[in-house]
Amino acid sequence: MNAFDLTEHPHRRYNPLTGEWILVSPHRAKRPWQGQQEAIPRPVSVPHDPECYLCRGNERSNGATNPDYTDTFVFENDFGALNQSVPEGGFGEGGLLLAEAERGICKVICFSPRHDLTLADMEVADIRKVVDVWREEYAALGALDFIRYVQIFENKGAMMGCSNPHPHGQVWAQSSVPVEPARETVMQEAYFAKNGRSLLSDYLEIELKDRKRIVAENEHFALLVPFWAVWPFETMVVSKRHFGNILQMDEAECDAFADITKTITAAYDQLFGISFPYSSGIHQTPTDGKEYPGWHFHMHYYPPLLRSATVKKFMVGYELMGNPQRDITPEVSAGRLRALVVNREVVF
Amino acid sequence: MNAFDLTEHPHRRYNPLTGEWILVSPHRAKRPWQGQQEAIPRPVSVPHDPECYLCRGNERSNGATNPDYTDTFVFENDFGALNQSVPEGGFGEGGLLLAEAERGICKVICFSPRHDLTLADMEVADIRKVVDVWREEYAALGALDFIRYVQIFENKGAMMGCSNPHPHGQVWAQSSVPVEPARETVMQEAYFAKNGRSLLSDYLEIELKDRKRIVAENEHFALLVPFWAVWPFETMVVSKRHFGNILQMDEAECDAFADITKTITAAYDQLFGISFPYSSGIHQTPTDGKEYPGWHFHMHYYPPLLRSATVKKFMVGYELMGNPQRDITPEVSAGRLRALVVNREVVF
Ligand SMILES: O=P(O)(O)O[C@H]1O[C@H](CO)[C@@H](O)[C@H](O)[C@H]1O
Ligand SMILES: O=P(O)(O)O[C@H]1O[C@H](CO)[C@@H](O)[C@H](O)[C@H]1O
Repeated sequence: MNAFDLTEHPHRRYNPLTGEWILVSPHRAKRPWQGQQEAIPRPVSVPHDPECYLCRGNERSNGATNPDYTDTFVFENDFGALNQSVPEGGFGEGGLLLAEAERGICKVICFSPRHDLTLADMEVADIRKVVDVWREEYAALGALDFIRYVQIFENKGAMMGCSNPHPHGQVWAQSSVPVEPARETVMQEAYFAKNGRSLLSDYLEIELKDRKRIVAENEHFALLVPFWAVWPFETMVVSKRHFGNILQMDEAECDAFADITKTITAAYDQLFGISFPYSSGIHQTPTDGKEYPGWHFHMHYYPPLLRSATVKKFMVGYELMGNPQRDITPEVSAGRLRALVVNREVVF
Repeated sequence: MNAFDLTEHPHRRYNPLTGEWILVSPHRAKRPWQGQQEAIPRPVSVPHDPECYLCRGNERSNGATNPDYTDTFVFENDFGALNQSVPEGGFGEGGLLLAEAERGICKVICFSPRHDLTLADMEVADIRKVVDVWREEYAALGALDFIRYVQIFENKGAMMGCSNPHPHGQVWAQSSVPVEPARETVMQEAYFAKNGRSLLSDYLEIELKDRKRIVAENEHFALLVPFWAVWPFETMVVSKRHFGNILQMDEAECDAFADITKTITAAYDQLFGISFPYSSGIHQTPTDGKEYPGWHFHMHYYPPLLRSATVKKFMVGYELMGNPQRDITPEVSAGRLRALVVNREVVF
């Protein structure tokens, strides 16, 4: 028998940000696929769609009219999963049926007045305006005394539950810290308490030396496929400097964050020659007023596609009952994405 | 402001089996849906399909020929995510890039020679034969000294990544305990150590009194929508008696388990008038030789559909970055499912 080989043998990998394991089956990429085929996203060609409730000047379902905006536009979600008019309260029977009232605010952020541009198509200078809105929303919502976490995210593409191709993201701000950032808080703070450095600083140092999973970098950010990535082409944007949230970035870092956002979204679109679906989100310090010296700002991209524009990875039976499983190794994925960014000047 | 009301106000609910919270937004079921529509599963009408690699007498992709089986048929997955020829080994850099070799066995279980029948269509006596196979596989695989967990599951429907309508499930047996059962182990054993009773015994006692989330029951099993359910029509089958795994069921319990399996799968098919997609899986004691006095046998059903045969719940941006979110309350879902089982004699 040969020696154990990460590129060949089934194995588990550990995610130090969450404390969870995933199953990697490198050999399984070869199996034939006879299952569901996804629809190829139709390219959007009109810069303004009179039927779109996000385009400027159009009416939304609550009767409001969108302003004649020129770069970004933010409004409160007409069908938010969270709202402010929730009385305090809870429910608890035998300690086993526990519920707690949750207050919050859900907003929609239009990235551009152009109906036909995604982040991947936009100029870096215009993405920079989106970064500024993310800062403003994190600051304004995080300052509210009942808001303890501000989740900024984007669902791109019909495959990711997005119902409108007009480029937009969301912010859900709420009175408790959700499960994922709470888990990352525990892991990062424990690491920092023990080592005096942030977990992602130490991790990034290894990756920048090894380079196998690095997709691109600029002066202030690195883009990589994490060693423990779950989705086939999952990536993470990590700041080179250790800071906890988007308000702690200086001007150069804001520009560099816009730049790396362009790099990854454009590389994704190249991968299968379609507007690439994904969910992305920023993880950063809770806004509950506590100190988080270990928190290290980062952004996740979770794209569902596996082999082509029409074959996605299904996170189903085993994944839901056991733990996530992937077929292609993070190293192979990183190599493929890296090959797609070589023509951009930001690459290393 | 009115008092806090679970049927009306956004809130979080706690899952005592995993220690995780979910967000419930009861009011959000009203939002219009303009997003992706799923394809309606085509009914399968041929009892034997010459192209199907699971039908009897047909050839599989590895060249083997299926036997002329009459009830169930089990074989090792030709493209298993796990296999036995993995050398011992691992990888660890700075404690942050950790990997471990994983050995295992993946099997496919054909539920019936009939290509056109799902568990929902099968006779209870034939489902009982499937229960017997689940017992045999758990016993045989669990007895191997390198196997520490045996995950039995089914992916039903193209929407859940199933590529062949021939009724079948899978077993993935492996050398470590996956994340979800590991989490349930911690929670159940801690509860048992503290209370001297299993978590699910106490939970079931509350539910059987309250009845709001009970969908059906027979002498030995209850079927309910858990208080903390994530998927719109998620259900759980819980044994009334506290035991840890499928080998500890007596004859009457085996029959009753087959019966409740028929009840839930048939009710699902009634819900939107289609062969209802889901992933299901049995959670039970690890097979690592340790004692698990707190483990309580149960089976989860996670169906993706939300409003109709064509509109599913997307677990995307917020759900992946924060925590799961649902729009319809578990109580409403349970009521709708309960109404569909009233004609079966097994109901209470
Ligand atoms: O083995 P299958 O049925 O081909 O594959 C299906 O179930 C597996 C276990 O949940 C998943 O890993 C795959 O993504 C899914 O397509
Ligand atoms: O608010 P939207 O974009 O209509 O909804 C989408 O994103 C939400 C947040 O991830 C999800 O809860 C929904 O299932 C999805 O369809």
